Amino acid sequence: MSEPESRKRCLSGVKSTGVPHLGNYLGMMRPAIELQEQHETYYFVADYHALTTEHDGEAMERQTYDITSYFLAFGLDPERSVFFRQSDVPQVTELSWLLSCVTSMGLLERAHAYKAAKDRGEEGAISHGLFAYPVLMAADILLYQANLVPVGKDQIQHVEMTRDIAGRFNYLFGETFVIPEALVRDEVKVILGIDGQKMSKSYGNTIEALLPPKQLKQRIMQIVTDSTPLEEPKDPERCNVFALYRLFASVEEQAEMAERYRAGNYGYGHAKLALFEKVNAHMGPYREHYQQIRGDLDYLEDVLRAGATKARQVAGPVLELARSRCGYKRRPVL
Amino acid sequence: MSEPESRKRCLSGVKSTGVPHLGNYLGMMRPAIELQEQHETYYFVADYHALTTEHDGEAMERQTYDITSYFLAFGLDPERSVFFRQSDVPQVTELSWLLSCVTSMGLLERAHAYKAAKDRGEEGAISHGLFAYPVLMAADILLYQANLVPVGKDQIQHVEMTRDIAGRFNYLFGETFVIPEALVRDEVKVILGIDGQKMSKSYGNTIEALLPPKQLKQRIMQIVTDSTPLEEPKDPERCNVFALYRLFASVEEQAEMAERYRAGNYGYGHAKLALFEKVNAHMGPYREHYQQIRGDLDYLEDVLRAGATKARQVAGPVLELARSRCGYKRRPVL
Repeated sequence: MSEPESRKRCLSGVKSTGVPHLGNYLGMMRPAIELQEQHETYYFVADYHALTTEHDGEAMERQTYDITSYFLAFGLDPERSVFFRQSDVPQVTELSWLLSCVTSMGLLERAHAYKAAKDRGEEGAISHGLFAYPVLMAADILLYQANLVPVGKDQIQHVEMTRDIAGRFNYLFGETFVIPEALVRDEVKVILGIDGQKMSKSYGNTIEALLPPKQLKQRIMQIVTDSTPLEEPKDPERCNVFALYRLFASVEEQAEMAERYRAGNYGYGHAKLALFEKVNAHMGPYREHYQQIRGDLDYLEDVLRAGATKARQVAGPVLELARSRCGYKRRPVL
Repeated sequence: MSEPESRKRCLSGVKSTGVPHLGNYLGMMRPAIELQEQHETYYFVADYHALTTEHDGEAMERQTYDITSYFLAFGLDPERSVFFRQSDVPQVTELSWLLSCVTSMGLLERAHAYKAAKDRGEEGAISHGLFAYPVLMAADILLYQANLVPVGKDQIQHVEMTRDIAGRFNYLFGETFVIPEALVRDEVKVILGIDGQKMSKSYGNTIEALLPPKQLKQRIMQIVTDSTPLEEPKDPERCNVFALYRLFASVEEQAEMAERYRAGNYGYGHAKLALFEKVNAHMGPYREHYQQIRGDLDYLEDVLRAGATKARQVAGPVLELARSRCGYKRRPVL
């Protein structure tokens, strides 16, 4: 069966950031999962990256199962997407060393995350893992000869660095790596939190994606609105409730609610209730699915192992090619 | 069979620095080989470290065979010493990542090699491989739970850094690594070059260890001496020729030559000839042995593979222990 011409290999690492909120779901997880319809998708739990900040072994293990369960619950299909644990493919650290030797310190010193930590005066205490992070990330991408890397705007620099590193390796050792491109997510879809700022754990304004109905309702009721009285007309375009509602409602439903806003005699309480019903209906099946998957460690391990097997089938030959370019002999099976 | 109490595990990386000279042989290679009599010795060709400077794949492969042949020719016994190629044990790069996450940037920024390059104004152009070198070196050592690391004085800092990194990992994740100690080579044995400075490639004053007789004689004749006339007494303690002679001659032979120096009517030409005879007699068998080994790639590969097998038998479980401490599951055999 021939593939449509536009089918590309997409790869992205997912960090376990605890319980995902609506911003994570709508901004990153759902778009990533949707890519599996059209592209060859590789997603990995970035548990080797996580070691730069997570030094609790039990938490590390638990978080990997959490994030895997969320992706599966939200519709990631392990038959179509390759979903694996970064640490199950040891080739990535080996490629990382090869790439380190063609990466200039100047490049890494310009990395935003490192510069930010340095600006906070943490220079001496920063771990080498944080500093070397972009090299491991380049290895993550190049090991799979990925064409596209779906990222948020804040991650574009890392893809640029990967392109630089790949180009340098290709220049020094001959054509080896595909030069990847960033697939920047549509930033129109900035998801607002309950206070109207961008939804982010650091602002404490999130709505967790899979809250049980009662807590979900409570949290939605906390969304900040202006104090326009019930009977007066309201502007839907300036309301946080409406902004969230439109992310879950059909075009007709959106138009209907906008109409009510403008007509007056429609309070924010009504809108919040409608938003709750919508989010709850959308998330309900995922919530159940999540509980079921998260409790089945055998299934989770099966998925991760099958993913690792597929990932290694790609990673092994690519690493071998890169090693041979540098003059390393094919390693004997010992 | 019980081992004597003092038997320790020694580990050292050997860099291929081209053709070894008498300084390399007497100062590093011979002492390293002698350790196999009393200790459990692990030596590896540091070919992953070499990638920080060597970007010619063919040279990389050739140099590994060269250095292996020299060690075998000089008496390394692959039955008693584990001799392997660093790049044949991929576990080392994986451990290196784990260690990166507990290594502070401050520690690495104090490394002599990096500081020296920075002082030369090369900061931006320095490769990340050079900067991260001490972390890979720590992984080299800790992966084998080595007790002793034979080093020259200039390498003591690297062992200190390894101790720091191991201590930090043990503190954060629980007892995992043996804290190694540097076994500093006796610096009384500084080997002087033909100009009386320390023998070093960068001074252009070396005598290659396995020169053919004719060239060896020519090179020894170039040793710089003072201009004391033939008939006058001479001070053996202030003569480069005598300094080299004593490294190869018995105590009696040394006493005899010293006597001739002091008696007069013994010229530097005579002493040089005696030195040549001594070095040539010592090196002759090694020279032949080297030619024979270097021509037998199958044998070299057999030695390196057998070494890699033994090395991995130690490295595998140690890496697994470190990974499990960080919360990574035992990797499935895929």
